[in-house]
Amino acid sequence: MEPFKVHILGCGSALPTLRHFPSMQVVECRGKLFMVDCGEGAQLQMRRVGVSFGRMGHIFISHIHGDHCFGLIGMISTFNLLGRTAGLNIFAPKELGPILKQQMQVFCPDLGYEVAFFPVDTTVQQVVFEDRSLTVETIPLDHRLPCCGYLFREKPTKPHIRRDMVDFYGIPVSQLNNIKAGQDYVTPDGDVIDNSRLVLPADPPRSYAYCSDTRYMPKLAARLSGVNTLYHEATYGDDNELLATKYYHSTARQAAKVASDAGVQQLIIGHYSSRYTDENVLLRQALEVFPRTFLAADNKVFDV
Amino acid sequence: MEPFKVHILGCGSALPTLRHFPSMQVVECRGKLFMVDCGEGAQLQMRRVGVSFGRMGHIFISHIHGDHCFGLIGMISTFNLLGRTAGLNIFAPKELGPILKQQMQVFCPDLGYEVAFFPVDTTVQQVVFEDRSLTVETIPLDHRLPCCGYLFREKPTKPHIRRDMVDFYGIPVSQLNNIKAGQDYVTPDGDVIDNSRLVLPADPPRSYAYCSDTRYMPKLAARLSGVNTLYHEATYGDDNELLATKYYHSTARQAAKVASDAGVQQLIIGHYSSRYTDENVLLRQALEVFPRTFLAADNKVFDV
Repeated sequence: MEPFKVHILGCGSALPTLRHFPSMQVVECRGKLFMVDCGEGAQLQMRRVGVSFGRMGHIFISHIHGDHCFGLIGMISTFNLLGRTAGLNIFAPKELGPILKQQMQVFCPDLGYEVAFFPVDTTVQQVVFEDRSLTVETIPLDHRLPCCGYLFREKPTKPHIRRDMVDFYGIPVSQLNNIKAGQDYVTPDGDVIDNSRLVLPADPPRSYAYCSDTRYMPKLAARLSGVNTLYHEATYGDDNELLATKYYHSTARQAAKVASDAGVQQLIIGHYSSRYTDENVLLRQALEVFPRTFLAADNKVFDV
Repeated sequence: MEPFKVHILGCGSALPTLRHFPSMQVVECRGKLFMVDCGEGAQLQMRRVGVSFGRMGHIFISHIHGDHCFGLIGMISTFNLLGRTAGLNIFAPKELGPILKQQMQVFCPDLGYEVAFFPVDTTVQQVVFEDRSLTVETIPLDHRLPCCGYLFREKPTKPHIRRDMVDFYGIPVSQLNNIKAGQDYVTPDGDVIDNSRLVLPADPPRSYAYCSDTRYMPKLAARLSGVNTLYHEATYGDDNELLATKYYHSTARQAAKVASDAGVQQLIIGHYSSRYTDENVLLRQALEVFPRTFLAADNKVFDV
């Protein structure tokens, strides 16, 4: 299976701490890199984590609070200094457009590559990007200002050729793509070998959903049906459930409820309030509801 | 003597590296903190270095290249989240004003404290800030766009009371401020004790000049006469003197020439190009011209 990973660059919330950069991640899918949110220090964390600037062509911003987008201009600027020529596509709520444009005019007047801005509608779930490997959908969230998550769905891959059968029937290499595409094989003697004997089923497509920042949304689970890995914010613990409601954030337990209701395979929690110096408090509360919960940490990598 | 220090938060140049944050410093003078330049990650570095957000009321920006100001909006935003009420004064070339204003409108619409913007004329040397402890002057520099350094001059302090003479004459505490202010002391018997016998001279006022970014300016030395500590950029070594000229930067040797011509007490060099993985190359070249040269390093503190 080709890699489908999530590199956590930061998993703090509004107040950066010495333990956590603000929320930002790089989703790696079949050799391409997609950034999700881009807080202050993003370019530094990309260097530290060791993901390639050049393989990153798309950035998805959930909402325009500073801790989710202050790193954009520095990254755009640094790409330019490094001589980038490949375009960069930025998906974000429309309010970011004019600010970014003004900043680029002042700070990068001689930009050597194209930055395209794609305003996203945060109120609907729809595909906003597609290439041959995956689609990316918006997921409406419930925050203090327009905000959406992003759902990365891998496209179906082809079935696996059975090496043993290829050898048994002496099938020439020229036929392998046809067989992968579903054709039967006809031997030189005219025997028809059914396709199902020549292949093993393709790996099921994987999917990753990023949901930050949001109030607890009981209906969110329905949108996440079949998702393998869910990242859901868990700003607070049970002790601060009222604060979570007030500030449009979630508790770890609420994140776990969403994961449980959606039937995902694993849950990653993050966007920790700076008041928790030990996030295991949050982990324990989530685990009571959903056993396959993991704590995000800066520089940590998860397989989707 | 009250502290007069320079905290180096970052001393890299345009391309941030894992070794250096972009150029930014905090000047500490008699209990107050003044920031000079504010690159991406400034708030993080302030936390790491352990300087107090609350004691920092003034920020001086040399020019509006991103590596000298991208950290501003994050810092302003974080101060707000922390409940700051004290005003913040920002001194910078006028072009920064509109960008900062737009960013603040979008990202900090509910700002709980006042941010005042003071455009500085980068073409003249003049005092742009004064309080009871010091003055801050602009220093015109020669860069690709309007750019100035900043010169922090401590105000004269009062002479030191000689404790032994106070005891000898039994001078009451009520008289000490008068004596500090230059008055003689008249004993109960009517004897006049000359002021010069009661005090030791005040410490000479100290001064610190920050000069980044600039081409080599032979005439700069004249402006720095009497300065104790000079920070001068040294982006390149001798091997890249042509690049220095082309990109309006200096070599370490040129920085040392300025220090030598100005007769300063010590020189700190920084703003290293990311191509130098060992800045001792730059140090050696500077030392050939000016022996009291020191390398800036992130998180290092210098006494002025």
